[in-house]
Amino acid sequence: MNTDVSPLHTQQDHAEPHISANGPARLDRALADYAARDWTDQAIFLNERFEAARAELGHWQALSRTSRELPPLAGLTMTVKACFDTAGWVSSCGSRVLQHAKPAMRSAALVHKLRTAGATLLAQTNMTEFAYGALGVNTRFGTPRTPLDPTGTRIAGGSSSGAAVAVARGYGDVAVCSDTSGSARIPAAFCGVVGFKPSRARYDTQGMHWLSTSFDVPGLICPTVGLCRQVDRAVTGCGADIPSPPLAIRLAVPGTLSDMGLDEDVHALFRTCRDVLTAAGITIHEIPLDSLMDSARIAAEGGIIGAEAYALHRHRLTTDFDGYDPVVGKRLLAGRENPAYRYVDALRALSACRDRFDREITGYDGFLLPTVPILPPAVAELRDEATYLRLNRRAFSLTEFANRLDLPGISLPVGKLPVGLMLTGIRGGDDALLAMASVLEPLVSNLQQPV
Amino acid sequence: MNTDVSPLHTQQDHAEPHISANGPARLDRALADYAARDWTDQAIFLNERFEAARAELGHWQALSRTSRELPPLAGLTMTVKACFDTAGWVSSCGSRVLQHAKPAMRSAALVHKLRTAGATLLAQTNMTEFAYGALGVNTRFGTPRTPLDPTGTRIAGGSSSGAAVAVARGYGDVAVCSDTSGSARIPAAFCGVVGFKPSRARYDTQGMHWLSTSFDVPGLICPTVGLCRQVDRAVTGCGADIPSPPLAIRLAVPGTLSDMGLDEDVHALFRTCRDVLTAAGITIHEIPLDSLMDSARIAAEGGIIGAEAYALHRHRLTTDFDGYDPVVGKRLLAGRENPAYRYVDALRALSACRDRFDREITGYDGFLLPTVPILPPAVAELRDEATYLRLNRRAFSLTEFANRLDLPGISLPVGKLPVGLMLTGIRGGDDALLAMASVLEPLVSNLQQPV
Repeated sequence: MNTDVSPLHTQQDHAEPHISANGPARLDRALADYAARDWTDQAIFLNERFEAARAELGHWQALSRTSRELPPLAGLTMTVKACFDTAGWVSSCGSRVLQHAKPAMRSAALVHKLRTAGATLLAQTNMTEFAYGALGVNTRFGTPRTPLDPTGTRIAGGSSSGAAVAVARGYGDVAVCSDTSGSARIPAAFCGVVGFKPSRARYDTQGMHWLSTSFDVPGLICPTVGLCRQVDRAVTGCGADIPSPPLAIRLAVPGTLSDMGLDEDVHALFRTCRDVLTAAGITIHEIPLDSLMDSARIAAEGGIIGAEAYALHRHRLTTDFDGYDPVVGKRLLAGRENPAYRYVDALRALSACRDRFDREITGYDGFLLPTVPILPPAVAELRDEATYLRLNRRAFSLTEFANRLDLPGISLPVGKLPVGLMLTGIRGGDDALLAMASVLEPLVSNLQQPV
Repeated sequence: MNTDVSPLHTQQDHAEPHISANGPARLDRALADYAARDWTDQAIFLNERFEAARAELGHWQALSRTSRELPPLAGLTMTVKACFDTAGWVSSCGSRVLQHAKPAMRSAALVHKLRTAGATLLAQTNMTEFAYGALGVNTRFGTPRTPLDPTGTRIAGGSSSGAAVAVARGYGDVAVCSDTSGSARIPAAFCGVVGFKPSRARYDTQGMHWLSTSFDVPGLICPTVGLCRQVDRAVTGCGADIPSPPLAIRLAVPGTLSDMGLDEDVHALFRTCRDVLTAAGITIHEIPLDSLMDSARIAAEGGIIGAEAYALHRHRLTTDFDGYDPVVGKRLLAGRENPAYRYVDALRALSACRDRFDREITGYDGFLLPTVPILPPAVAELRDEATYLRLNRRAFSLTEFANRLDLPGISLPVGKLPVGLMLTGIRGGDDALLAMASVLEPLVSNLQQPV
């Protein structure tokens, strides 16, 4: 990182107040809002424990009156995506085929970690079936909509659809979710909240139901970067050791941006973000990052996710094909045709691609892109399968770079728009990424729509 | 490990003398023997630097007169299998298709490590083409024979054929080789020397030419366990920290031994070994180790090596198929047909199998098997392709367990016979394995042929 002095004003790391003192009253307001809405065909929760959560928050509130040393997440509410085990609930992965499976005996490692850090479990969230789709369309449990669209017709994005809406509507403070190709960041961008995908080694995956063993990572959706950092610290245990944001941030923009199929609205807003960040003293250079588009070609030819997902589902596809969402079932089945040598080749080529990226990004702290190159489409548009498949591919086209190259990434809300500014960090640079995100967040969160 | 007191006499760890004082005279005797033999159609060396090695040994000898603090391998000679880069030599992998490739610019990490520890590089050794075969048959450079067969007609085994003969004939003290399915241990067994396959994470693979990225590990062939430990210590840097052999060794024999296709001669000798070890106070129990045969089934169905090898070779198979050994080329090509989901499934199933093995072996320090279930066949027998393929499969049927389950393994010479006693350790138990091997080695090395 560059050590020039810069005029940046950085957000305080501890700006997030300890909110246990708020107790159940805040949850009551949230649940009143929840109860007043019609969730028909757009369910965000598949299981809930509102009453138990309310009681827990009361206990934390009582404790907070006598002790200032509560666990770090005491008073926060948490939702869990339906592909993470939560003791007592069925991990349906949003699918009809698992709807009547046995409830999980114990919670996934990440869920357990957050609970032992004081977080209160509120609900299990809806998702694209088996997380195999970036738009959040779910024909069994309904397709959540982004709260940023006043007409209520546009999708929340996915696959962590319910997770993002729950946070955006203030029902839960932190959503535990997964990110295979962008499943945390895409719905966060569409819903105007923060979506964080850590490096692969950062969070324990035990109890997470896999889609792709090569690309899946657990992720977080939160209303703010500050809260995301607070939760991340509770997970990683790096309590007091918060790295300061670099004095001068140097970011890259891929030279191939114009080939990345950005909608003009999204592109214009991204340019505005860039101007605002530059004006605030952040160095932004367009540089060749050919490893990104290389990784896209390798992943497309190698069919990595398809092969891994088919391997996981093939027995069930034989016995219960009709139980699957028709599009998901068909996409899963297609993975059968992939030859092993292509898969092996692709994993090897991605490994070389990672090294290439590391060389290309040298001298920079990360790179910027819009999170999604399109605005959230209307649910009705997606009934046509060809349109669905085309928009699905576009939706994850910018986020999956981080999964292929194993980089940390975060989507930040831009204005009050369903568009995210995505910062992707360097290898293993999760701490620095979160610190930089704290700097960027206030600069773009109040942007007005351009034009 | 059990802590009962036992009457075992353990070999001294530092029994191996520092041999730099022997200087070039020992090498001269070895090279005289080498020069006196006919290597037509059974080449063990593909490149050599006898003169340079002689000069180096002279310098070490001179140094040893003035200093007692020489590097740990000073005065030892080393050979390197042709699939490891050695600066200045072509890494042909024993194949015609790479015979005229560019010489390596720098040596593989393991070779470099041994050289910087004082070992003198002597020669590059012959191998099965691309290490794809356990018998050491090489139609381009010739098929080495075991020195234990006075008629000179029986194979040395493979794929590290030249490596084992070089050590067995006393030309080199340590042979750097690879082990995918048994390539270090099989020829060591057939040639009456020690072959060591470490756990995957133990030795640096940089500069090794892969056959199978899942199974390959660098290995060592040495005349004795003591020398093998000396070299291993130089590689791992665990200089002074030599673990003592356990006070009482508890070993398992798989309950399915009778289903493992052992030739009667080999089985009888294995029984004798078992009796001798038991008489010496080692506890040996037959226990169910179903994970072993499970791993065989998984590997056979999943075609892991085939898929990985085809991925590496497919471009060259297209442009230069006729350059390959006919059988190797055909076997490589067959990997094309493997579907990715089978490969993914197999890797996942092997991972579960590893956990199962760890549970099954609890309470034991390792398990015993013959290294190879057959005696070395005659070269002439192997001209028939069906016979070759059948015997090849049998040759690695007991060694590949350790590669699939990522366990350390060592083959010890039994009597003066072309039969190895193989000790396979527990997960990550390389140090304990080597220590136990020091205890077992003298008990079986002087056995007379049964019957």
